[in-house]
Amino acid sequence: MVSEKTIERLSLYRRILLQVRADGAGTIFSHELAAAVQANAAQVRRDIMQLGCIGVPNGGYRVGDLLDSIDEFLYPPTYQKVALVGVGNLGRAILSHFAGRWRRLSIRAAFDKDPAKVGREFSGCPCHAVEAMPRVVSELGISLGVLAVPAGQAQGAADLLCAAGVKGLLNFAPVRLQAPASVYVENVDLTSALDKVAFFARKRAEEAAVRNAIGTT
Amino acid sequence: MVSEKTIERLSLYRRILLQVRADGAGTIFSHELAAAVQANAAQVRRDIMQLGCIGVPNGGYRVGDLLDSIDEFLYPPTYQKVALVGVGNLGRAILSHFAGRWRRLSIRAAFDKDPAKVGREFSGCPCHAVEAMPRVVSELGISLGVLAVPAGQAQGAADLLCAAGVKGLLNFAPVRLQAPASVYVENVDLTSALDKVAFFARKRAEEAAVRNAIGTT
Repeated sequence: MVSEKTIERLSLYRRILLQVRADGAGTIFSHELAAAVQANAAQVRRDIMQLGCIGVPNGGYRVGDLLDSIDEFLYPPTYQKVALVGVGNLGRAILSHFAGRWRRLSIRAAFDKDPAKVGREFSGCPCHAVEAMPRVVSELGISLGVLAVPAGQAQGAADLLCAAGVKGLLNFAPVRLQAPASVYVENVDLTSALDKVAFFARKRAEEAAVRNAIGTT
Repeated sequence: MVSEKTIERLSLYRRILLQVRADGAGTIFSHELAAAVQANAAQVRRDIMQLGCIGVPNGGYRVGDLLDSIDEFLYPPTYQKVALVGVGNLGRAILSHFAGRWRRLSIRAAFDKDPAKVGREFSGCPCHAVEAMPRVVSELGISLGVLAVPAGQAQGAADLLCAAGVKGLLNFAPVRLQAPASVYVENVDLTSALDKVAFFARKRAEEAAVRNAIGTT
């Protein structure tokens, strides 16, 4: 079974390769890709081997072939459609950030309980009333959901999405969702991320101060 | 040494306790907190023990005391100041999302290379020119940086922040940064998060289809 870390790395390789291709390079060596992601070259070669992509003798990998192989591996043969719930500041940033980013994955519907937002488009994505969620998700064949709602509304939104057949959730709300075992849930907690940076940055500064005080290097 | 996972959990407990307090509850049991974060109660009690916070006999924990203990543990005695680089859609959403969220942690300066943004305020945070970064970071005593710039600008911004004395970076750009060992770096990769959800949701749906086809439950 493919690990979550492998998928994260393939996703990152893809973005780096898109940049490399935009810069005009036709081939890339595993050590160059490894340097860009701060992994080792053997890891990169193992990941690429999983894709069934083979290198050019003594010449690394063809960037276009590698991109095709990653796309083939990461994305479905047909479109995978996403719904976003909560068109606040974070939701709008996500819509804008993700718009046009993938070939076979896109946010096709947004939902908000604010009547002033319903009927409008945000980064090209139409916003519907929350009540329309079951119908719209089912009609469009949406299989993934992004939750950008406050903590108190996240479980309710998740329940509606799962009942409508969604199989994966990306949750930005600071709660742990209850979802059927058949639904994959990934949590992104921005506040916790900054809390962690603040805590460990302070600890490192304190350790450095102690080292200086006792005169070691 | 405290683990990253512990800090993530404490950060999440804090948000849940703020909600519990807003809802008017004075005490909370470890199993209630555990249910909210989908951890087990023993884990929650171990985490709280690290804080040196003790419960009320047979009555759980006082919400206010627990919040004070977490704040004491997670945050510094004085202010920890943050700079954000890149006031695009994502940067503005982060500024808005984080504004007023902490007692002793706040984003005090934003930076952008777009002259139209320089001199303006976003969610109460003034935006400066990128060239002013070394001076502003040092004058305000900023110790943390958030990078919300495109991939190609992230390393340059990180270098400027680190040279100015920043000790922790929260990086949203899809690159792995080179930073001094004394700087703590946390990466949040939104595209990779959705790639992961898309991949594993599809795999689970495929597995379910196979199980149905061969008639097992």
